[in-house]
Amino acid sequence: MAQKPSIPKGTRDFSPAEVAKRQYIISVIKSNFEKFGFQPIETPSFENSETLMGKYGEEGDRLIFKILNSGDYLAKANPVLLQNKESNKLTSSISEKALRYDLTVPFARYVVQHQSEIDFPFKRYQIQPVWRADRPQKGRFREFFQCDADVVGSKSLWQEVELVQLYDSVFMELGLEGVTIKINNRKILSGIAEVIGAKDKLIDFTVALDKLDKIGEDGVKKEMIEKGISESAIEKVQPLFNFTGTILEKISKLSSLLAGSEEGLKGVEELRFICDNVTNLGLNKAILDLDVTLARGLNYYTGAIFEVAPPKSVSMGSIGGGGRYDDLTGIFGLPNVSGVGISFGLDRIYLVIEELNLFPETVTYTSKALFINYGEKEAFYSMKAITKLRSFGIKVELYPDNVKVGKQFQHADKRAIPYVVIVGETEMNEGKFALKNLISGEQVLLDFEGLKAALL
Amino acid sequence: MAQKPSIPKGTRDFSPAEVAKRQYIISVIKSNFEKFGFQPIETPSFENSETLMGKYGEEGDRLIFKILNSGDYLAKANPVLLQNKESNKLTSSISEKALRYDLTVPFARYVVQHQSEIDFPFKRYQIQPVWRADRPQKGRFREFFQCDADVVGSKSLWQEVELVQLYDSVFMELGLEGVTIKINNRKILSGIAEVIGAKDKLIDFTVALDKLDKIGEDGVKKEMIEKGISESAIEKVQPLFNFTGTILEKISKLSSLLAGSEEGLKGVEELRFICDNVTNLGLNKAILDLDVTLARGLNYYTGAIFEVAPPKSVSMGSIGGGGRYDDLTGIFGLPNVSGVGISFGLDRIYLVIEELNLFPETVTYTSKALFINYGEKEAFYSMKAITKLRSFGIKVELYPDNVKVGKQFQHADKRAIPYVVIVGETEMNEGKFALKNLISGEQVLLDFEGLKAALL
Repeated sequence: MAQKPSIPKGTRDFSPAEVAKRQYIISVIKSNFEKFGFQPIETPSFENSETLMGKYGEEGDRLIFKILNSGDYLAKANPVLLQNKESNKLTSSISEKALRYDLTVPFARYVVQHQSEIDFPFKRYQIQPVWRADRPQKGRFREFFQCDADVVGSKSLWQEVELVQLYDSVFMELGLEGVTIKINNRKILSGIAEVIGAKDKLIDFTVALDKLDKIGEDGVKKEMIEKGISESAIEKVQPLFNFTGTILEKISKLSSLLAGSEEGLKGVEELRFICDNVTNLGLNKAILDLDVTLARGLNYYTGAIFEVAPPKSVSMGSIGGGGRYDDLTGIFGLPNVSGVGISFGLDRIYLVIEELNLFPETVTYTSKALFINYGEKEAFYSMKAITKLRSFGIKVELYPDNVKVGKQFQHADKRAIPYVVIVGETEMNEGKFALKNLISGEQVLLDFEGLKAALL
Repeated sequence: MAQKPSIPKGTRDFSPAEVAKRQYIISVIKSNFEKFGFQPIETPSFENSETLMGKYGEEGDRLIFKILNSGDYLAKANPVLLQNKESNKLTSSISEKALRYDLTVPFARYVVQHQSEIDFPFKRYQIQPVWRADRPQKGRFREFFQCDADVVGSKSLWQEVELVQLYDSVFMELGLEGVTIKINNRKILSGIAEVIGAKDKLIDFTVALDKLDKIGEDGVKKEMIEKGISESAIEKVQPLFNFTGTILEKISKLSSLLAGSEEGLKGVEELRFICDNVTNLGLNKAILDLDVTLARGLNYYTGAIFEVAPPKSVSMGSIGGGGRYDDLTGIFGLPNVSGVGISFGLDRIYLVIEELNLFPETVTYTSKALFINYGEKEAFYSMKAITKLRSFGIKVELYPDNVKVGKQFQHADKRAIPYVVIVGETEMNEGKFALKNLISGEQVLLDFEGLKAALL
């Protein structure tokens, strides 16, 4: 007796209802990407291992899924490594390919490989699954979709302005109000590090400062001192402990705070350009806010940094993020191509929309009507109508078997099909169709044109 | 100096133009699947190895991509197997997961795993990539999409009728005329085997018969005799060597030929039901034909067998196939669930449509207009218009940098963007926009409403 089958941990099956909801979110993101001039590319699910390894740090390398070479993969393996069971050292000789870990590195590889076909600036989007051998937990999976939009080949800050607008546009269309787009700049973080005189303490500093709401000014300062940041340094950035006001007021405060740091002031200037223009062009529903503790992927970004927080009523981490990177393609031998991009977190956005009950009722793939099967003649009569209705794009179906009518009605009900069409001797003789609305219970007798009009 | 990066053999990058064309085909297939009452599901890219192994024969097992376990994968491996380098025997102890090889086995696994949530008959479609470690060659890849529609839980032959209609509907919408949907039935093949008195020679028989057009009746008979089929057996099926006429005439011939085989006659009856109803309901453009040599996946199918040939003007193998299987879910412990399904070959359909020049010109993701960047003030003025145009769903973009105008025009040209919008001092003072059609060269001065109307 076969065991009931299962799927690998951290992976998911998606039912028709789930696919419908996911596709709804993806289609909103896609159409906005295109509205903003981004074009889709797709890359292979697996890359040569050397393309991916070493790009995500040691932890990342560990989490990359490796694909075993085909055929007699041990033939050329080093016998000593096999005997000593040195898994780590053996891997590269028995596995040449690996599943992609994100969309950014494959994109950089794509740009370098196809540079002669691309006219820069290149605005691309990519919506594909990625795989990580992470420990599965609530909301974290081993296979999940990333939805990325990036521009490479231009340092223009108008790109950052547009990416903020793009976030705003997507979340407005999804009906999500109260989304906060947090912005920071890598150069401002460098400036702060300069001011506190401790570049190596920057992460300790931002991590501590981020706790201001939770543990208060005294708590934060205590933690900073414990981490080895001097009291005089902390004094110099005192304004950050009372960092309130509009985004433009905050920028002014930063401007005086970072007066001594050339790089910091450059960051302030960039931030001001972005915030000024976003403000003057106006956002629909989202709020733009400056968060000096925002430091995602510190070593990766070189300019603007973005992160999107869901509405405060939902307890959930960030639903999007991104930033400016000045040398992404350098790792593949094409230096000086600046890029900036953002990403949407599909799974979390799904959970937020589900929790706020914002999926439109029309998001479903269900047929409009089920024709009840009363036997071969009736089925043929029905199929003639079904064939014509489908040619007008109307989703209808015939119950395939002539079984008890109750069972057929139940099937429509369970599938959430709103109408059934009943064709018996009488209807056939009159060239009619009885259409029953399963929600109201109302039933009407119609000719084909009437039926078509009712189901369109 | 980094090497120019590449991708694994048998895989592909898709450019924006290619993604657009692929998505066009997929969207036609999808919308027809839905019109016919099929609902989408998605399954994980990798399955537990035991779900896949042993389902595709020995050759299939070899072609499945295996994923190396994470962490210290050699720890529990058998030292003797390592020492003797027994790749085949070692695999199951260092790899627990594998990339899916097709969509059918994962679908069977899905049905069994989720049987309590499903109300049968279950009509599902699935459009996802699959992976095979095949030797790459023209038109054959190691990663490719399958587009499958199946119904499980009903033996009704109306399903077969609808699947023929579905093929017809998809290919009509794609503009492909002269497609032939070939049909056969596993039971007819069994009947022929009975008549020639040699079950084990059935494949030799159909393979030889399939060459009738190429090597003529004498050639075929010679091959059959070489394969050990007796002359008297060949005489019994003589009508198959002159198997012409309409599909209903062919069915009549089969009916007398198979008079002595109960199973064969059952197949003829099934075929007649399907062909009668398809004929009476009418097809749009496709031709339905009976091909008694059609025997794809002989051990797998139990009833109808389908295969779709492209228009004769294109030299290409089948662009779709499928059939009836009576016990797919049995391998996972759920017996007696009959199913029938068809598949569309995306890559080949793409090549056929490309060769026949049938992709609509509108299949593209290109922006409608590029705003030329003359500097910060002009860019801001442009961005105000761009922001409003996008809110109406119009795809427009700003060239991000204030570089030479010629270079910006060239960019529009290379990207095949049909219009540029020019905003200088004069236009700003008058609240206007100069819209230039890059194809005709015509330029007009418009206010915002005029611009919007021109780009809608």
